[in-house]
Parts: sequence; C-alpha cells; structure tokens
Amino acid sequence: MLRGMNEGLALPALEHQRAAFAEGLALDCGAVIAPLAVAYRTYGTLNAARSNAVLVCHALTADQYVAETHPVTGKPGWWESVVRPGGPIDTDRVFVVCANVLGGCMGSSGPPAEMADAEGGAAGRPWGTDFPNITIRDMVRAQKRLMEHLGIARWLAVIGGSMGGMQVLEWAATYPDAVFAAVPIATATHHSAQNIAFHEVGRAAIHSDPDWRGGRYWEDGRIPAKGLSVARMVAHITYLSEQALTRKFGRRLRGASALTFLEDVFEVESYLRHQGSTFVRRFDANSYLTITRAMDYFDLAAEHGGDVAAAFRGTPTRFFVASFSSDWLFPTEESRALVRALNAAAANVSFVEIATDKGHDAFLLEEPEFHRALAGFLRGAAERLGV
Amino acid sequence: MLRGMNEGLALPALEHQRAAFAEGLALDCGAVIAPLAVAYRTYGTLNAARSNAVLVCHALTADQYVAETHPVTGKPGWWESVVRPGGPIDTDRVFVVCANVLGGCMGSSGPPAEMADAEGGAAGRPWGTDFPNITIRDMVRAQKRLMEHLGIARWLAVIGGSMGGMQVLEWAATYPDAVFAAVPIATATHHSAQNIAFHEVGRAAIHSDPDWRGGRYWEDGRIPAKGLSVARMVAHITYLSEQALTRKFGRRLRGASALTFLEDVFEVESYLRHQGSTFVRRFDANSYLTITRAMDYFDLAAEHGGDVAAAFRGTPTRFFVASFSSDWLFPTEESRALVRALNAAAANVSFVEIATDKGHDAFLLEEPEFHRALAGFLRGAAERLGV
Repeated sequence: MLRGMNEGLALPALEHQRAAFAEGLALDCGAVIAPLAVAYRTYGTLNAARSNAVLVCHALTADQYVAETHPVTGKPGWWESVVRPGGPIDTDRVFVVCANVLGGCMGSSGPPAEMADAEGGAAGRPWGTDFPNITIRDMVRAQKRLMEHLGIARWLAVIGGSMGGMQVLEWAATYPDAVFAAVPIATATHHSAQNIAFHEVGRAAIHSDPDWRGGRYWEDGRIPAKGLSVARMVAHITYLSEQALTRKFGRRLRGASALTFLEDVFEVESYLRHQGSTFVRRFDANSYLTITRAMDYFDLAAEHGGDVAAAFRGTPTRFFVASFSSDWLFPTEESRALVRALNAAAANVSFVEIATDKGHDAFLLEEPEFHRALAGFLRGAAERLGV
Repeated sequence: MLRGMNEGLALPALEHQRAAFAEGLALDCGAVIAPLAVAYRTYGTLNAARSNAVLVCHALTADQYVAETHPVTGKPGWWESVVRPGGPIDTDRVFVVCANVLGGCMGSSGPPAEMADAEGGAAGRPWGTDFPNITIRDMVRAQKRLMEHLGIARWLAVIGGSMGGMQVLEWAATYPDAVFAAVPIATATHHSAQNIAFHEVGRAAIHSDPDWRGGRYWEDGRIPAKGLSVARMVAHITYLSEQALTRKFGRRLRGASALTFLEDVFEVESYLRHQGSTFVRRFDANSYLTITRAMDYFDLAAEHGGDVAAAFRGTPTRFFVASFSSDWLFPTEESRALVRALNAAAANVSFVEIATDKGHDAFLLEEPEFHRALAGFLRGAAERLGV
C-alpha cells in the first residue's frame, strides 16, 4: 500500500495575495468565470516608467511562490536559483510577477476555490469538477487582467518553462504588443501524443480512486490521495532522464542483498513513492485534471489555421528559445520546430540547446550555461528598453 | 471513470496443457514451490534425434499461446507472424515449445493457481500474494524441468523478446550446454532504473485499488480492475515509440472540434483505456506484481561477480542479438553492451539493429528485415546441427 498518505486531509486553507475582478472572464469553451480571482506574488520593485516588469509563468504543478519559502511545504521557492538579486532574472533590476494559473489551487479561480452562483455570489461549495474546461489561452487572459490591475502596459519579458513556456507562446501570439521579449523554455507549440498519453494515465489513476467520488471529494473531507500520488509518480518519471535516474539511484537497493524481496527494494521506488505522497499535501486533484487537460488541448498551429508561423507573423517580440539535450518530454526537436516557425515569421529569435543529462527538470536546476544565456538575453533586452 | 470494466469477474477457469512435478522447485529466495506445474504449448514435430526443439520464452504479459487462437481473448497467437510453417521459426522444420512462466496466470504455478499446503496438497485457496518472490532464473529452472519432461537434452535455440530475452540470457548463462543457439531480442542484461520506476507506478496503481485488498481479492470474487488497467496503460506507452503514437493517433480528436471538452477527447486516450480494460480480462493482478518484480531483480552482472562477460566465459552457445532503433524501453545501447560482454567472453555473436519507428513492440510486429535475419540465423544453426 502507499504509505505516508494523509488521506483524511484537504489542502490547508491559506490566505493568498490576490486580485479580484467582478467582470467575468470569457473562456474558450464559452463559459464565464465571474468573479475572477488571480493570486500572485511579486519580487523586486516596479520602476517609475513601469518598464521593468517580468512575468514568470509557472509549470503544471508549480505556483506563484517563485522566490520565497513555500507556505505549504516550507521549502524554497521553485526558481530561487534564477529569480534573485544578481541572478539571471535579477530582482535588483526587474520587477517579477508570477500568478497562480487559472485552474490552479493556490488562490486563483480554480476547482478548489469557492464556486460562484448564477449571480456571481458565493455558492457555498467549491467548483470541483464543475470548474469549466480551460485552455492555456484562458490562463493568459487571466494574467492579462492582473497586468492591467498592476498598471503595466508591456512586459519587459514573459518567461516560463514547460507549461509555463506554452503560456509564453500564447502571450506572444495573443498580445504581441504587450510582450517585449519572450523566453519559452523546454516547451513546444503543441502537446505530443505521448505526452497526452502520460497525462491520461495520471487522470485514469485519479478517476480510479474511490475517494475521488466523481470529483465531489470535498463533501466528506477526504482527498483521492492514492490516485493523485500515482499520477505524480508517472509524471515525475517523465521529468527526469534515464541518465538522471540512473545517476541518482541506478539499481541501488535499500536492503543489503539483491534478493531480500522486500517492498520498495530499489531506492528509485521509495523516492517515487515519496514524490507521490508529498505532492498530495500541496496539490488539488481536480486542479490536476483541469490543468493537464489544458496542456493537452494546447496546439498553437490549430489556433492559427494550421500554421505556427501565422501566430507570430509581424511580431515585434524578440524570442529566446531554450531546450535541454536529455529532455524527452519536450525534446529539442520540438524547440527547433518552434524556431523554424519563428524564422518563417521573420521574428527576432535566438536559440540554445543546453547539453545536460538532467532531463526536462533541468530548467529548474543548477545549469550554469543556461543561466548565463538567460541572463545575457535579459540584460540585452533591458538595455534596448533603457531599463 | 474507467469504462468497460468487468469488475466483478475473475479470470475464466481454463484447462491448460501442463506438466506437473511432485518434486519441489527451490527458488532463489529460499522458498520451494511443490508441486510445480508448468503449462505449455508445442507447435511442429520433435524429430527422432530430438535435436530440433526451439524454446520460445514469452514477455511480461504474453503466455504460451504463441501460434494459435488465444483461449481467453479469441485473438491470434502473439507471434503467429514468426512461428508458423515456412516462417522465421519454421514449424515445418522445428519443434517449438513455449511455457507459461512461473508466476504467470495461464496454468503454471503462480499467484492465481491453487496454493499448496505444507504437505504439498491443495490448500483450498489461491497463492495470491503468498506466492514467493521469484527471479528470471527461477522461471528458467521451471522451464528446465519441462525440458527434461519432454526428453530434450539440448535446445536448438532459445528465443525471446523483452522479458523473454532475459530468460534467453539466463538460459545461456545457467545451462550453456543445453542451449545451442540463443536469440535475445529487444532486451538487456539488467532492468534499468527508469524501467523499474515505470513498473513501480503500475504496482502502486494496483496496490491503490481498494479491490486489491492486500492481494486477497479472490475472497470476494472481485478483481482490482481499475488499478491493473492503469498499470497496463502506463506500460503500454513504454512499448510504443513517440513516432508510433503520433503516426497512429497524433492529436486526432474523437469529437469534431478541438474544444468540445468531452471526456476522451483524443483518440490516443480511448485507445489506452481500451488497452487497459481488455487487459484485465486476461491477466491476474498478483501475477503482474510478481512478474514485474522478477524483471526488476534481473541483473546478470550482479549474479556473476559484477561482470556480464563472466556469465558467458567459454560458452559453446552462439548468439544472435537484435534490437530496434526506436525502442526506448530496451534501447539499442543496452544490446550493444550485451554484445560487448559476449565479445569479451569470446562468444560467437552476431548483432543487428533494425531501423523501425515502432518502438519496443516492433519485435512482435511485421518487421521483414528482422524476420529475414532471424530466419537466416536459425537456418544456419539448424544446418550446423544437421537438423
């Protein structure tokens, strides 16, 4: 059995810094979210010209706590190595904004947030699976509201990896004049069949957990911890490279002998189980279902008549595309295809593939070459804007 | 929710052709299986010299029904394209034997078979999770009993892909004089950290299904169909290449529009769910746990003082190693490492990497170049033996 599960516990109730918008947000699916809440955090200081704002877009299971201790886990922010004074995203020079994505579970409108009734009032229950299906573009539209709320007309840069990179591309395609520089990292213009398949396994695991109860698990205060944990386990494997797993664990055994035949014989197993069981303490299952779907729907070409280049034709935005050699979830080839499309759109684009054996997760880890390249690009963009 | 589940149904009761051995089989873990049952099928005719016998070793979820209609699914045998009159394994010339692996669920001693009591009599209940932990070598030892039962002193060839290939290697290492030719296909000398990790996800999904009931699911006649189905889904992804998934399904939608937001929006999803739900009708969850563990334990080097070459030093066996270019579960690099070890052992070895985009499953599919190479190797081996 999965151990260390806090099955009886829902996510802790937290107060997040957030902006609330009475005017509803019209979604791609036709539904309207009203009121709209966008939870966010900022780092650094907005200058008088309001020209030094950088939007960081987070990945599937991250959140707005980029560069500070996480209020649930007590762990460091997920990109403290990048977003810091003097860092590649230098908070001594730029004003960093990160919003919890629409559909998330850290304060923005999403499945665990209180549902609105027909008049926009509180319905007295969470959205749960009644939360509408959303797209990456919907996430970006919610961030646009926050941008207006903060009085920012143009981002110096929009930056993100993985699903964050999808948001970066959607920002540049939808609001080109609001994005001076775009940095899509370890991402792609669409979610591949294999990635959809892995997501579907995770969703099936959640759906199979009887504690999910068709999504109405809030009613008895239990969460589908086992299903969500299995979903996290399979996803986690895809974030690492075979080399990274081998280097970290190889076939190292927890016991002394190869044939002790205990449960969790291999270190990699107990590591994965730990990943699963800690994840459920900080993430909502219905948010996971909603956000993975949004990633699966993402297909920039389909939104632009079958042609990615059409999404960027005439764009004023300058792009810096980065991939990692051992990333098999978003392989370099998909970044190259993006670069080709940007070239076909006559966009200003530079591209780097970082040699690493750390897999998809490399964008979150200590990768000095990547950090130097990112810092250089942002410094150049800031100089052009006179920041 | 997963659909099409026959949750209430246990595996159908079938009579299988089998050999029973009163003498117990001593396992690597120290336990003894007594009596031992080995279910098997044969194709073709054993010659008078008993020199034309070929052992086919099956993979994780296959069984002994290699070249005939499967008694549960009604589908063709799993290797009918290879094992047939005039085929690469030519049943007009050779006598093919395939045994259900120890730990399996198609008639050999395994978790769903009736447990033996202390005196070797029937305990009136299946083994379930009381079935001992087994190794690939234990599977081979059980097949060796069948070999003796059939009056065969030496196999013309031992052939198998994936876990079948692990058995091939264990046969050649443990009983070199009983194996004239060995054909390990799409396999490796040990299970990698990534492969162990994917197996662990499948096991966690089974363990998480409340119908598993700590492995005692036979008591109420329900099976852990949802957990086993999720396990099959994740495994199935690893059997295909990204290219195969894309070619088969791409991002093709089941509905008309990209934003219908229905369940199973993408074809790849309904395909995977179908794979999961049909699998549970023919496979036992405790067998899946037992056999995946055996694969994870497999480490030929560890069994031979850390040196794969030591397993084959002075071997009389000739080897034909085959890999497939798009197989990421058992990548070509692992076959190359095997070939290097065989070379270091001064073994007679030939190696072919087949260019294909079908992934690990290619060894089961129509691959003319592979079939020609296999047929040529076996014809040469048979001629040397005067078969």
